Amino acid sequence: MQSLINLVNENLDKFMEITYPEDIFKSMRYTVLLPGKRLRPVMCLEACQMFGGKLEDAIPAACAIEMLHAQTLIHDDLPCMDNDDYRRGKLTNHKVFGEAVAVLAGDALLTFAPQVIVKNSKNLGAEKLLKILEEYFKYAGAYGVIAGQVADIESEKTTPENPEKTLEYIHIHKTSDLFKLALRTGAIIAGADEKQLDVITRFAQNLGFAFQIADDILDETSTFEQMGKTLGKDKLSGKLTYVSLYGLDRAKADLAQILDDCEKILSENGLKSDIFDQIIAKIRIA
Amino acid sequence: MQSLINLVNENLDKFMEITYPEDIFKSMRYTVLLPGKRLRPVMCLEACQMFGGKLEDAIPAACAIEMLHAQTLIHDDLPCMDNDDYRRGKLTNHKVFGEAVAVLAGDALLTFAPQVIVKNSKNLGAEKLLKILEEYFKYAGAYGVIAGQVADIESEKTTPENPEKTLEYIHIHKTSDLFKLALRTGAIIAGADEKQLDVITRFAQNLGFAFQIADDILDETSTFEQMGKTLGKDKLSGKLTYVSLYGLDRAKADLAQILDDCEKILSENGLKSDIFDQIIAKIRIA
Repeated sequence: MQSLINLVNENLDKFMEITYPEDIFKSMRYTVLLPGKRLRPVMCLEACQMFGGKLEDAIPAACAIEMLHAQTLIHDDLPCMDNDDYRRGKLTNHKVFGEAVAVLAGDALLTFAPQVIVKNSKNLGAEKLLKILEEYFKYAGAYGVIAGQVADIESEKTTPENPEKTLEYIHIHKTSDLFKLALRTGAIIAGADEKQLDVITRFAQNLGFAFQIADDILDETSTFEQMGKTLGKDKLSGKLTYVSLYGLDRAKADLAQILDDCEKILSENGLKSDIFDQIIAKIRIA
Repeated sequence: MQSLINLVNENLDKFMEITYPEDIFKSMRYTVLLPGKRLRPVMCLEACQMFGGKLEDAIPAACAIEMLHAQTLIHDDLPCMDNDDYRRGKLTNHKVFGEAVAVLAGDALLTFAPQVIVKNSKNLGAEKLLKILEEYFKYAGAYGVIAGQVADIESEKTTPENPEKTLEYIHIHKTSDLFKLALRTGAIIAGADEKQLDVITRFAQNLGFAFQIADDILDETSTFEQMGKTLGKDKLSGKLTYVSLYGLDRAKADLAQILDDCEKILSENGLKSDIFDQIIAKIRIA
């Protein structure tokens, strides 16, 4: 796992060169290169390997997905959104560079990320590159992660009629969609067929959902030092979370069940991966 | 000209369907469909026709460029940026939908726009589509329009060493880059070669620069009723503009000169277009 993380970090550093006007590139780099688990790019690389693809073919796309993830963090942390001052133990982007540059850095990452893919993956051919970009547009945009963010905002303004369904919708889009993008992209680069893509999409959907439940649990049970961000805000703001809706015990039981399902999806389809076993184990002990 | 504007408006309306979660699509639609001159999409369509392409082939890309333009307006108007309440005579996006949704609507447009191109232009083939997307990423991002916006913000924080060069850089990126994107994209769809692309890029660079000088002049000499936005803000905030730097008379003289250059670039290269003649004439009397 660590060797994949190192590979991602080295390449993120390489792709994110600082040129004029420096503020924007510095701001983009700042959040992209914050120390992190690099979960999404590692999953992209591993999905590529699991379906018989070459690791190096997936590096630009894996890094692009981490850039997209950083984009969502920068804008999520803005005063008009979650208004967070800390992220991964460091000041958030707008606290360092100001709100205007943080907005623009997020904007820039949304086109910089796919640009990195196209520039550095010409060997995949136009057809496959186009397919990868279509996945990116779908999961990054108004039908993907942003749909989750907006549903989240709407749910805070008015109590949803069906909170269970709303929460599932929010979690699936806010979190699972980037997991799906990571895994599907890696699999597409490896040349996976539609049936294989369906399997990996179901796996990513469940894994992302579990990850978000674990995050909701940790927001209740951890400290700033453990998580590197301000916690307990969900509870204070009366936010709809898995824990607020079902209670801590049920949340923990469901998390375990969904992770079992994840393992089953892999084993039933003859897919073996130490990396995904490790990721599941990490989310399990959350 | 009006028939091209109508064609753009009809297709923008068609492409921007409202689905769940509705707030995001309503917010995106709101600014994209504000009544406007549709200058960039019209230029894209006309560039396609001027180089012998089929009008209908350029419609998705033309509309995507208008969506991108709307994206820059939504984020430019935010309180942390220009803090504008009115745009084209209507309330700005964040005034209607709130800041959080306005940030997300802008984000969503950045991937929605190229998605519209890919979904609706399959007939162009993967190679050409990829080329169009590369243009989009380049001019929309940190090397394009955002570079201009950041240089603009930086120039307000500290007095630039070379204000003439800085202003040129800001104008070229903030304005000319979307003009270049519009014209180059239309020309690429028509199958223009590299030499033709160089000519049209030079034309777009000059036309965008002229357009921005005209805008600086109008900010001094017009009324809210004429422009649909709050004016005179540049002067009040001591902002670097063509008029503040060179004075009104010089600005008017340079505007005329640059528009003459635009006409020369077309005529010297045997390019004839009523539409571009009309656009030049409109900017001239600004």
